[in-house]
Amino acid sequence: MLHVAVIGAGRIGAVHAASLASHPRARLALVADPVGEGAARLAERYGARSTTDVADVYSSTDVEAVIVCSPTTLHVEQVVASVRAGKAVLCEKPVDVSLARVDECLAAVAGREHRVMVGFNRRFDPGIAEIQARTAAGEIGPLEQLTIISRDPAAPPAAYLAGSGGIFHDMTVHDLDTAGYFLGEVVEVTAVGQQLDPEIAALGDFDAAVVTLRASSGAVATIVNSRHCASGYDQRLEAFGPRGSLRLENLTTTSVRHHGASTSDVAGPYLDFFLERYAAAYRLELDHFVSAVEAGTAPSPGLHDGRAALVLADAATRSARSGERVTLPTTGDDG
Amino acid sequence: MLHVAVIGAGRIGAVHAASLASHPRARLALVADPVGEGAARLAERYGARSTTDVADVYSSTDVEAVIVCSPTTLHVEQVVASVRAGKAVLCEKPVDVSLARVDECLAAVAGREHRVMVGFNRRFDPGIAEIQARTAAGEIGPLEQLTIISRDPAAPPAAYLAGSGGIFHDMTVHDLDTAGYFLGEVVEVTAVGQQLDPEIAALGDFDAAVVTLRASSGAVATIVNSRHCASGYDQRLEAFGPRGSLRLENLTTTSVRHHGASTSDVAGPYLDFFLERYAAAYRLELDHFVSAVEAGTAPSPGLHDGRAALVLADAATRSARSGERVTLPTTGDDG
Amino acid sequence: MLHVAVIGAGRIGAVHAASLASHPRARLALVADPVGEGAARLAERYGARSTTDVADVYSSTDVEAVIVCSPTTLHVEQVVASVRAGKAVLCEKPVDVSLARVDECLAAVAGREHRVMVGFNRRFDPGIAEIQARTAAGEIGPLEQLTIISRDPAAPPAAYLAGSGGIFHDMTVHDLDTAGYFLGEVVEVTAVGQQLDPEIAALGDFDAAVVTLRASSGAVATIVNSRHCASGYDQRLEAFGPRGSLRLENLTTTSVRHHGASTSDVAGPYLDFFLERYAAAYRLELDHFVSAVEAGTAPSPGLHDGRAALVLADAATRSARSGERVTLPTTGDDG
Amino acid sequence: MLHVAVIGAGRIGAVHAASLASHPRARLALVADPVGEGAARLAERYGARSTTDVADVYSSTDVEAVIVCSPTTLHVEQVVASVRAGKAVLCEKPVDVSLARVDECLAAVAGREHRVMVGFNRRFDPGIAEIQARTAAGEIGPLEQLTIISRDPAAPPAAYLAGSGGIFHDMTVHDLDTAGYFLGEVVEVTAVGQQLDPEIAALGDFDAAVVTLRASSGAVATIVNSRHCASGYDQRLEAFGPRGSLRLENLTTTSVRHHGASTSDVAGPYLDFFLERYAAAYRLELDHFVSAVEAGTAPSPGLHDGRAALVLADAATRSARSGERVTLPTTGDDG
Repeated sequence: MLHVAVIGAGRIGAVHAASLASHPRARLALVADPVGEGAARLAERYGARSTTDVADVYSSTDVEAVIVCSPTTLHVEQVVASVRAGKAVLCEKPVDVSLARVDECLAAVAGREHRVMVGFNRRFDPGIAEIQARTAAGEIGPLEQLTIISRDPAAPPAAYLAGSGGIFHDMTVHDLDTAGYFLGEVVEVTAVGQQLDPEIAALGDFDAAVVTLRASSGAVATIVNSRHCASGYDQRLEAFGPRGSLRLENLTTTSVRHHGASTSDVAGPYLDFFLERYAAAYRLELDHFVSAVEAGTAPSPGLHDGRAALVLADAATRSARSGERVTLPTTGDDG
Repeated sequence: MLHVAVIGAGRIGAVHAASLASHPRARLALVADPVGEGAARLAERYGARSTTDVADVYSSTDVEAVIVCSPTTLHVEQVVASVRAGKAVLCEKPVDVSLARVDECLAAVAGREHRVMVGFNRRFDPGIAEIQARTAAGEIGPLEQLTIISRDPAAPPAAYLAGSGGIFHDMTVHDLDTAGYFLGEVVEVTAVGQQLDPEIAALGDFDAAVVTLRASSGAVATIVNSRHCASGYDQRLEAFGPRGSLRLENLTTTSVRHHGASTSDVAGPYLDFFLERYAAAYRLELDHFVSAVEAGTAPSPGLHDGRAALVLADAATRSARSGERVTLPTTGDDG
Repeated sequence: MLHVAVIGAGRIGAVHAASLASHPRARLALVADPVGEGAARLAERYGARSTTDVADVYSSTDVEAVIVCSPTTLHVEQVVASVRAGKAVLCEKPVDVSLARVDECLAAVAGREHRVMVGFNRRFDPGIAEIQARTAAGEIGPLEQLTIISRDPAAPPAAYLAGSGGIFHDMTVHDLDTAGYFLGEVVEVTAVGQQLDPEIAALGDFDAAVVTLRASSGAVATIVNSRHCASGYDQRLEAFGPRGSLRLENLTTTSVRHHGASTSDVAGPYLDFFLERYAAAYRLELDHFVSAVEAGTAPSPGLHDGRAALVLADAATRSARSGERVTLPTTGDDG
Repeated sequence: MLHVAVIGAGRIGAVHAASLASHPRARLALVADPVGEGAARLAERYGARSTTDVADVYSSTDVEAVIVCSPTTLHVEQVVASVRAGKAVLCEKPVDVSLARVDECLAAVAGREHRVMVGFNRRFDPGIAEIQARTAAGEIGPLEQLTIISRDPAAPPAAYLAGSGGIFHDMTVHDLDTAGYFLGEVVEVTAVGQQLDPEIAALGDFDAAVVTLRASSGAVATIVNSRHCASGYDQRLEAFGPRGSLRLENLTTTSVRHHGASTSDVAGPYLDFFLERYAAAYRLELDHFVSAVEAGTAPSPGLHDGRAALVLADAATRSARSGERVTLPTTGDDG
């Protein structure tokens, strides 16, 4: 039984707490949140201890693993402290919005990077994972084109957006990680941003974007993003190769279809929002983390994957602003 | 070039005239209709002759084949006269609603039955024909269950229904022929009629029905009928066997799907009505007829198929009224 | 917190134990199974007590509710004993295969029938429940035709079939309950049985069947059953009315579709078998039971629903054997 | 009855000849092809005259309109000669691969540009036309993102590719025209080319590409192209706006779906190739041309649309080679 602490009693902390409660080989031991009653309430629901002092997490000897669900600016500090205290860590994405901070984190945990998993939950979505596995197994031949259409139901409030790091770091980063998961080494990034929403434009941010990534293999991924979608959370992916393609369509709440006087085969709207759409992914992500900790192996995606997604988000931002294709150093490069 | 006459310048006569006009190896030579200007108008459109005297069809030596599109009560007389005049015949369904009359027809053309094709157009629908061929080729193993859902967009006027012979002879007969096409010899018929529409009930007719047919092979076909369907012309078929199933879904006018605020993947209504849904079937039916006449082979379905569908419609009527399963004589029976 | 005992530690007992474990307001208190180590093993997994003496269930004062998952022949005895001991009961279907025994059960619990729920889990399937609710709310107008296609992946072993009571009591009974849920009062039953599998025919049983039910409203339900289906557990339902139709398609494990050289839009096989297909239904069924017990209301479906499904299964058996439509007494009838 | 000449008796000439034959208000008068027996054979099939001297087209006083289906390098010369001879012209795309040549053409027909239609047949595809019309009518709100996935079944032979002008001029040009049809004025082009096929790379050409176009409205179109697709001719389009989206899926030959032991809902491959997929579009394109000539109105798309698509293809080529976003002059610009 793996004893786990959760730092941060907000929405995503609650998701992980619930997953822990139903996991056969893990239990929620401690919830830490410096603000208000959140930690106490969440802990009580699952019979765990609570604290408003995050340091208790590091000093609790029964705690073997930590799930970091705090605001992004606190991630690096808490990851480093947890690892130094000998805990395994599952850190919600992104590790940080600053590449320099992520590099500090990597330096601080040097030699123990494999103790840290980064919460790119979509890799654990059954559909995405299945397509990645079937593609990797060669079913469609070498991957040539990956197309991701990813749209949020509605833009977050301007206050949130102002501190979000911009669309590429806040929203596209998930798709960049997914693309990297399929493509391997990315060598070029081209991005086109759209400013259709004046409020978001006023923040200097984009509300929609198209990003293309070229891999060293020659494959190209295209990501189409929008901050809003009338039909809900639009999450599609298509892998294309010389022998065929694999597609993931949107999920809806039921399989019921309506046929009426002027329309037919009508489905309901898409599952909305990420907690609903990726419910299974969160559970499977936690299961992977628990299994890796038990086995003493490196969970994946790890800190280097978190860094790689950030590098792509930085490059996309630069390309969207300059109109130029951004070339990334390859592992074969001297630099 | 096969020279063809059309008897009856109504809606279905016009369909066949158009098919003839675009057929590379046939031409419309003569249109006959005793009533009004119909024949003249239709003939003019395609550069053919016209007459109000049907007997001209039989006496025209250039006419090699006749398509009978007159009211049902005239079919037998015109088929017989055409065959006796040495013409090949494509007769619209049904041959007649009276089994005795059909048997008279068979007797009258004895030895030349193979000169007559009956217009069960659905056998030529690309989807139905494909499923029948794949099933016959063994793709799903021996056919076990056939399910046909067949609903008209709206009931015809009461005046038409009063002379229609009832739902089983007027509407189900198409599905009975399709079922027979798949099942081979049918040995039992069970029917349940519904009287949901008081106007149709007042005529002693049913407006909806479920019919099951058992074949000597052990396979069972289920037909679900209704005289109305809000979404249009509902035409589905599923063949099921031990190794899988083949399904035909409804056709819609385009492949465009709408995704909106409260619904997703919305298609348009079904193709409506039979001239639209079975447009290809009418063309392919004519092509089969022309090819058979050219080759001197028997077109299919023929008069015996027309008779078989009528036997099934009679049996369904009896079962729906009595509540009893109706057993049909098999070819192995003495009688 | 509702304390619940489970009688029977087999496959379905384990499903309910797991649902209890994850239910926020119920807990598994006791598992009883007279045979072997099953009860002990299941109880241990969820921290409950176990016993090989079923009488312990009735005498345990902390047990407020009982879930009866024993072999069918023991259901009536255990339901009656549980109710007499003051417990609420969720009894797996069928209550019994003998109408006389079910009537004995009803007599024995007279006045406390509302304490017993019968486990027709499909009523709680999100898709079926949604269609029933939308139909009941009038979305498609008055229900006219209900079509259920229901096929098991593969026939159970002959040993099981020999004691199953026949296809209508063992398999169709689920669809009969679903149909009754939509139709209300059923007044006529017509059934056609198929004996395609010689092993099953040797038992005097059918391996496939088509059943039609007529309701006093005039609506007709059609059930198409088979004991086997190459593509998995085939579970479809369509409600049709004057203003449209609502359809439930089969569920597959993911939304991934493959497009290859000779085929496109290829989905995986259907969810297989009932524990997977109706996983949500089992959870929602239990939740309904717990909520009803908490509120002191009658859970639904109850013993009278269990009896009604049995009456339909008896009638279907009679019709399939005799070839006659079976008329059922209506509530308006004297008898 | 519009009398039409066809120049070029190849594959596409034959398509237009067949459309003319079945058009109620047009007839094929003359087929001209300097090479071999092609013109004679095609003319004979439809009862038209033929010539190996293209000048006969211009001098034939009964010819009112000309369809130019010759090799691309001859288009401009034949368009100009036809217009000067007073004929209306439908010119197959592209007008020319050189912008200078197209500008020469525009200069040569100055004042009579509206007599020339350019054969961007996809605009007449029922699905694309429907989405364009519904989008233009505001059904999804102002267009924000257009996504076109367009893949050919297989690359043409290297000999053809060598003279094709490259992927953007030969293949993407169709999608560029479609995108322009939806977007209106395009102000920026970004392209990423892929060289996965060494044979095509050896020609200095790309075999796959992703192009993004930004409109002055702020909308962005993304085009994903490949020279090959295992499943056939992959032709999809999605228009996305604030109130929903409209999607066109691939068309397959029938609506039959197979459900088997390891897969379900299996469709056949896509319609393959453009003559099959866009059969209706070719007929509707011709009908638009005939109607415009009859009415004396300007058919659309015209020469300026042909020029605009070429400008986009030039820009995409430049962007793919340089890695830079290409900005186009807007109508508001001085230049």
